[in-house]
Amino acid sequence: MSQPAPQVDLQHIWAVMTGFQHSAALKAAVELEVFTKIAEGKKTAADIAAATGSAERGIRILADTLTVIGLLSKSGNEYSLPPDSAFFLDKNSPAYLGSAVDFIMGPTQMRGVNDLTNAVRQGGTTVTGDGSVDPESPMWVTFARAMAPVVFPAAQALAANVGIPNDTPIKVLDIAAGHGMFGIMVAKAYPNAQIHAVDWANVLTVATENAAKLGVGDRHHLIPGSAFDVEFGTDYDVVLVPNFLHHFDAETCTEFMKKVNAALKPDGKAITVEFIPNEDRVSPPAEALFSLIMLAATPGGDAYTWSEIEKMMQDAGFAQNQHIPLTPMPMHLVVSSK
Amino acid sequence: MSQPAPQVDLQHIWAVMTGFQHSAALKAAVELEVFTKIAEGKKTAADIAAATGSAERGIRILADTLTVIGLLSKSGNEYSLPPDSAFFLDKNSPAYLGSAVDFIMGPTQMRGVNDLTNAVRQGGTTVTGDGSVDPESPMWVTFARAMAPVVFPAAQALAANVGIPNDTPIKVLDIAAGHGMFGIMVAKAYPNAQIHAVDWANVLTVATENAAKLGVGDRHHLIPGSAFDVEFGTDYDVVLVPNFLHHFDAETCTEFMKKVNAALKPDGKAITVEFIPNEDRVSPPAEALFSLIMLAATPGGDAYTWSEIEKMMQDAGFAQNQHIPLTPMPMHLVVSSK
Repeated sequence: MSQPAPQVDLQHIWAVMTGFQHSAALKAAVELEVFTKIAEGKKTAADIAAATGSAERGIRILADTLTVIGLLSKSGNEYSLPPDSAFFLDKNSPAYLGSAVDFIMGPTQMRGVNDLTNAVRQGGTTVTGDGSVDPESPMWVTFARAMAPVVFPAAQALAANVGIPNDTPIKVLDIAAGHGMFGIMVAKAYPNAQIHAVDWANVLTVATENAAKLGVGDRHHLIPGSAFDVEFGTDYDVVLVPNFLHHFDAETCTEFMKKVNAALKPDGKAITVEFIPNEDRVSPPAEALFSLIMLAATPGGDAYTWSEIEKMMQDAGFAQNQHIPLTPMPMHLVVSSK
Repeated sequence: MSQPAPQVDLQHIWAVMTGFQHSAALKAAVELEVFTKIAEGKKTAADIAAATGSAERGIRILADTLTVIGLLSKSGNEYSLPPDSAFFLDKNSPAYLGSAVDFIMGPTQMRGVNDLTNAVRQGGTTVTGDGSVDPESPMWVTFARAMAPVVFPAAQALAANVGIPNDTPIKVLDIAAGHGMFGIMVAKAYPNAQIHAVDWANVLTVATENAAKLGVGDRHHLIPGSAFDVEFGTDYDVVLVPNFLHHFDAETCTEFMKKVNAALKPDGKAITVEFIPNEDRVSPPAEALFSLIMLAATPGGDAYTWSEIEKMMQDAGFAQNQHIPLTPMPMHLVVSSK
């Protein structure tokens, strides 16, 4: 302890170390509907506290914390919503993603992350029983409800990149639909498309709700079961594989894409959605950081690089593969044909 | 869900939401001694995995994550330590603060933060039994061991700001010494000083160790017990109140400072160390964010502003109060005289 005054800086390490406190502040604010009450016109800590059934001291400290981390603005003693918070965190916004907070910071995810040391030791999740790749996991129902608003822009972008004239009567398979948003947005863009959504039966109820809500329920069909085991049928023009492969090891992904390949028409295409970091695996940040979630939550999943994905696709019989980043979104499209 | 493609950006909200994952990555790396092994020359994921008894996949994902968040550097497939990580996270560095990770992310702190929603509702911690202001809490022994390296630069700065010639034989009271570093650094700077350290007996053992280690054990005396109840004695030249007041409400702080006042010589001074945010309570970031830790961990503590601290001090009979920020450290000095 006799070192000279350091030329180094503790602040960044401290910020990482205390990041969980900021996540917790966001979670508490979502649970107490602080953003929603501010959108409704409650401005001071006293008013927000009254509207949320909270202590003024608690709200004042929480709202100040949220201000420091950029999720609220403060002027005098009044709080307001910056544009991002108004768009994503007000319950009355159509893009509300408070439910994503419930999922990302939900008990299953937290268990995996809180035991990360052991996940690193064994090279995969320590969570079993209701982990992310277990059959019929109720976690995926939460996920499906949570993530629809999060993936909405990516689903729009996918629908715009199908590369088939929009009046074509296409037959589409939507793998592991979950919320179903990718297939549903294709159905919206392709009025003559028929969507066949594969997922566990409990999760498909959410996709069915979303399809009805968006007016495509009559063209949205269900194939309940594990995507690995269920019979897909054949002669699909398009197979969507959105945010699915990252849960599995490369060999499993390759075998799965062979099954996808067999379900496609000769001139059909698979459109995969993935977080694809650069070959250095440490950029761009959002894509690269996704791998930790897979380490904590899956036995062998990953955020695959383009070279890894291209090899899987080639090994599965897809000769042509196009990589379409959806910048600034972290999701990327992979359009594959035989 | 029919909004246009947003002009807003989810990335910052996502970063806050997933901050707990980055904290967990730091914690796992500290627990597995990843930084230490890299300092010892292990560079690749395979080498680090072998040295830490981990899976290569686990280490690769962990180390890439740490690279993205700035705690490692990566070139090709080799990892190295940026200066901050080498200084603070290598176990063989004298400034190692892995123990601070153990404390900040330890079970008691985590319990409070994980129940933040209810802390906001009731305006104070929901943790009882071994909370931060309970007597003889073993948490404070962990804290004392954890925080010595963290406060070291601030303790040096305090010793440089006592404002008394260094050969003066001063009698110093060190309140809630914990690790004892503030009093110990005064003892180092004042070879004729006698330090009287107040804390619970179990915690004082750590201060005693540190005093011996730094060669001032013979001038470091113990007053075991609660700082609120124990008899301080009188005629102190200096009373140190380092990182103590923020655990308590303002009224309690004022009453306590009256007791400090009574223990001082007429021309004596109290030197308080606190996180002091600006009057807006949302800047500077580190000071402002400290209030959330107090909300999660204490019934009524806070990061007090200068006007609040000045009022406490004046109400406690300190007519003159000087505010000395220790920028870029988030700790501030308050030098008070009657």
